[in-house]
Amino acid sequence: MKLLVTCAAVVIALGMQTEVGRAAEKPPVRKLRHVVCVKFKDGVSKAQSDRIIVAFAALPSKIPQIREFEFGANNSPEGLNKGFTHCFILTFDTEKDRDAYLPHASHQEFVKIIKPVLDEVLVIDYWQETKSSSP
Amino acid sequence: MKLLVTCAAVVIALGMQTEVGRAAEKPPVRKLRHVVCVKFKDGVSKAQSDRIIVAFAALPSKIPQIREFEFGANNSPEGLNKGFTHCFILTFDTEKDRDAYLPHASHQEFVKIIKPVLDEVLVIDYWQETKSSSP
Repeated sequence: MKLLVTCAAVVIALGMQTEVGRAAEKPPVRKLRHVVCVKFKDGVSKAQSDRIIVAFAALPSKIPQIREFEFGANNSPEGLNKGFTHCFILTFDTEKDRDAYLPHASHQEFVKIIKPVLDEVLVIDYWQETKSSSP
Repeated sequence: MKLLVTCAAVVIALGMQTEVGRAAEKPPVRKLRHVVCVKFKDGVSKAQSDRIIVAFAALPSKIPQIREFEFGANNSPEGLNKGFTHCFILTFDTEKDRDAYLPHASHQEFVKIIKPVLDEVLVIDYWQETKSSSP
């Protein structure tokens, strides 16, 4: 009986520790997304656009305010991409962090690299809402 | 000593169970994003656009293929949003799931609701890349 009680106490203590661990790891309730859709100029080769993408993807290692970074090439079958071929999503914890990213030297250096091959860019930032309740 | 060994065994077993649980919960390595940027027609009131957003946000409860759903209103200080005011990001595990969503009756019902108030829509889907290594 004593063994059982002790084991139960250990199990409960471990459970609590796991919960505390989870709470500590918990990301901020809402994230600030920075969505960048890119359309390269006609005649820009895949090798050129790949170099741009690599340069963009290097920014998180240079700008600590970027919390998450992801991107990809359009594969929508709907044909509603208006010529935009790539999407990049950067995530920030605060507007202050986003505002530090925009004029950051490494970002501005990247802007200089992409500008000559860029036809159009669309940028939307938003505070993430994830509600999915029925109306 | 016996108590210690038994407790240790319980702890190890629990740890293993947690690991197995984690592996089972682990999301797919890459996610398929479906990014939808929306521009409402001039004259559409906030109450009208809010109703549309609520209807959109209700889709995950009707279409099980939608793995994640988030959205938000543009707050970028850059002025590069080309009139698009809202962004919605739906996440799917597979292209098959995305292809089931597009003609899904509940999605098509929503399209009928949004169409009369929609000025423009931009859709980009991509398989998420998250590499951020330096060039």
